[in-house]
Amino acid sequence: MTLAPWRSPIARALHRNRSLPAARYLQLATVRENGLPANRTIVFRGFVPDPFLEEGRLENTLQFITDRRSEKVLELQHNATAEACWYFPKTREQFRLSGQVELVMAPGSATEADVMASLRAHLWQSISDSARSQFAWPHPAKPRAGSEAFELEPPDSQHPLEDFVVLLLAPDKVDHLELRGEPQNRTRFWLDAAGHWQTEAVNP
Amino acid sequence: MTLAPWRSPIARALHRNRSLPAARYLQLATVRENGLPANRTIVFRGFVPDPFLEEGRLENTLQFITDRRSEKVLELQHNATAEACWYFPKTREQFRLSGQVELVMAPGSATEADVMASLRAHLWQSISDSARSQFAWPHPAKPRAGSEAFELEPPDSQHPLEDFVVLLLAPDKVDHLELRGEPQNRTRFWLDAAGHWQTEAVNP
Repeated sequence: MTLAPWRSPIARALHRNRSLPAARYLQLATVRENGLPANRTIVFRGFVPDPFLEEGRLENTLQFITDRRSEKVLELQHNATAEACWYFPKTREQFRLSGQVELVMAPGSATEADVMASLRAHLWQSISDSARSQFAWPHPAKPRAGSEAFELEPPDSQHPLEDFVVLLLAPDKVDHLELRGEPQNRTRFWLDAAGHWQTEAVNP
Repeated sequence: MTLAPWRSPIARALHRNRSLPAARYLQLATVRENGLPANRTIVFRGFVPDPFLEEGRLENTLQFITDRRSEKVLELQHNATAEACWYFPKTREQFRLSGQVELVMAPGSATEADVMASLRAHLWQSISDSARSQFAWPHPAKPRAGSEAFELEPPDSQHPLEDFVVLLLAPDKVDHLELRGEPQNRTRFWLDAAGHWQTEAVNP
């Protein structure tokens, strides 16, 4: 596997900010069906790990999870480009990661067993009972249901619920800004037409 | 002046997170001219204060500053809707604020002296020398200039540089999610056709 040149500054930032839970939260911007912007916080669930890489596919790809009933799923089905903004408070640096999103939904049949279904099952197993329970909660953003609707037994940790969706972001442009330093440092990375990463130092 | 119903939860969050400088940072999503999303961190500079409110206009409006040469200015001139995502780490709550952005540029003539020019001058005076200097730096995102191009005397604190732009966000929709609590609380606020704020508790 080939690590993109922005992987090492991200790994360093994750390590140096590891004491802050919010350093794993980033903001994902999408475009709504009406052409207006949307933005929300999502939790970084690591890069797609080795066993799921298919001959270069899914390399350098960020994993997130979401609910099929959330608006971002509709938005991404309409326009699959997203830009994540990731700010690290301790080291005072920002990454903007722009690229295509792939949504991994429940497989069409129970016997389907490709690498994406395994990846989805693997992430489902890795999250907490309370994270899993949210996929059994009433429909997000609908008028508030009574509290009894949220009092559920945790779902089976082996079989992902239907509404559990994996969101994979494969950046093709990354902008890294370091606020520390006088002047600040800013580096742009982009995937060229030949599939190679290019790097340029730019003005902050 | 009439405070919107989401102002009090924001004031509380700002107060409870006041020990964290990053609690004044939020992420602003816009749509590029090609219809793709953009997202970056910006610093909250308070709400438009009393002296600049004009008969209800600019009420409940968030202030930011930016460089006229930055891509977001072009994007907002093309599509003035933005969605800010504001996460407060200490209290674990998120506000999504969606609405129209007004850009306050350098006035067309030096004699022009409306409330917007005063607001712009007021914000210019309120920021630090080092923040002011950035508006005299080489063009953002162009190939990195030599270090001497960044070694400047701080600009005059009384007269905003040409590239200093005030960005005003007037939300018409706000979504407040509190991650603390079982289940989490989520409240939606929106400005109705009569100009009144509506509030609804929804599922998280």
